[in-house]
Amino acid sequence: MTTPSALVFDAYGTLFDVHAVVQRCDAFWPGRGAALSQLWRAKQLEWTWQRSLMRRYVPFSQVTLDALRYACEALGLACGAEQADALMAEYRRLATYPDVADALVRLRPGRKLAILTNGSPDMIEPLVAHHGLRFDAVLSVDELAVYKPAPEVYALAVRRLGVAATDIGFVSSNGWDALGAKSFGFRAWWINRAGAPLDRLDARPDGLLRGLGELPQALAA
Amino acid sequence: MTTPSALVFDAYGTLFDVHAVVQRCDAFWPGRGAALSQLWRAKQLEWTWQRSLMRRYVPFSQVTLDALRYACEALGLACGAEQADALMAEYRRLATYPDVADALVRLRPGRKLAILTNGSPDMIEPLVAHHGLRFDAVLSVDELAVYKPAPEVYALAVRRLGVAATDIGFVSSNGWDALGAKSFGFRAWWINRAGAPLDRLDARPDGLLRGLGELPQALAA
Repeated sequence: MTTPSALVFDAYGTLFDVHAVVQRCDAFWPGRGAALSQLWRAKQLEWTWQRSLMRRYVPFSQVTLDALRYACEALGLACGAEQADALMAEYRRLATYPDVADALVRLRPGRKLAILTNGSPDMIEPLVAHHGLRFDAVLSVDELAVYKPAPEVYALAVRRLGVAATDIGFVSSNGWDALGAKSFGFRAWWINRAGAPLDRLDARPDGLLRGLGELPQALAA
Repeated sequence: MTTPSALVFDAYGTLFDVHAVVQRCDAFWPGRGAALSQLWRAKQLEWTWQRSLMRRYVPFSQVTLDALRYACEALGLACGAEQADALMAEYRRLATYPDVADALVRLRPGRKLAILTNGSPDMIEPLVAHHGLRFDAVLSVDELAVYKPAPEVYALAVRRLGVAATDIGFVSSNGWDALGAKSFGFRAWWINRAGAPLDRLDARPDGLLRGLGELPQALAA
């Protein structure tokens, strides 16, 4: 099988490490950071799916802020403008995983590289610029007003990159996102950092990775 | 404002208490029942949303069994056919909450009463029959092949009951379900058993209840 002529990456948790947000939570609310960030992330995702089904899209920056406020309220933590602003700012300068920069250099020759993210432009564009990363396209669901794993999200990459779905390799650390892409027709690699079981969504990824650094060799094999 | 001429109820967690499933989990895997049932429920719901967005519907009985197997795998618990069959059977004979039978009798005069559930007919019909409950309609998302909170689910109740959306009162213990119904155009009551914050989904319920027993008085007020 030929290697994909385009690679499309999820952003948060795949290229960018959200752990700094957890640390900042713990700095504001000592000992509660893990519980807060877990509930924050859970609500953030739930609402992307529910809002998509309800046809009540709002940008990811709004969902993310709403979910932070919800999680603080649920856990009895006071969250003023200072905390909210600082945590949202953290999202615009997340570190990349250590193996990302080198992997992107090795993956680049002869290929288009793109990001396809739930993140709205006000979140993802400053983050990509902060790192000086170059992609052929930084695509956000925002222009479609529906979140992953709706097939029209993955179709956006086909349209914008001008590459057939079967010739696109998609990489995500979210199993359901990798399987949404696979179900749409992409080839898909799942970065399974947590060693989680595979989601039961009628599809299997083409490969499992522990980090993006393993992808060049996986494609060469 | 006139009281609704039809009342539509969510099933699991609203009329039927899923706690017996938790107890049975704990009997099979002592000390792990709470963690297992929490992850089981979380995956069950996630997949209803993700599959709806992916256009990969399978019936709720399948999603529920898949989620049980996933949760056991994630927690390192052996789940054979005996455990799986017993837990799925539990779903077909869940107890009603203590105040449900009396509330339904008091709510009945002059109104249509219906269930609108994610549960597939193979789950919900034996459960309703087990309790000898009488409804004007027991409606499942199964015929639509999409899960709550998609608006077409709530539209099914309008069509089947022949009652305008604004004249239907919807009751759910899931905040997002109550708000999905409200967003569609129903009047909505949220049974907030856990004292959770309100989901941020651009809608507010018409009323909050601690249990179904409070609804007759809330409607009379």
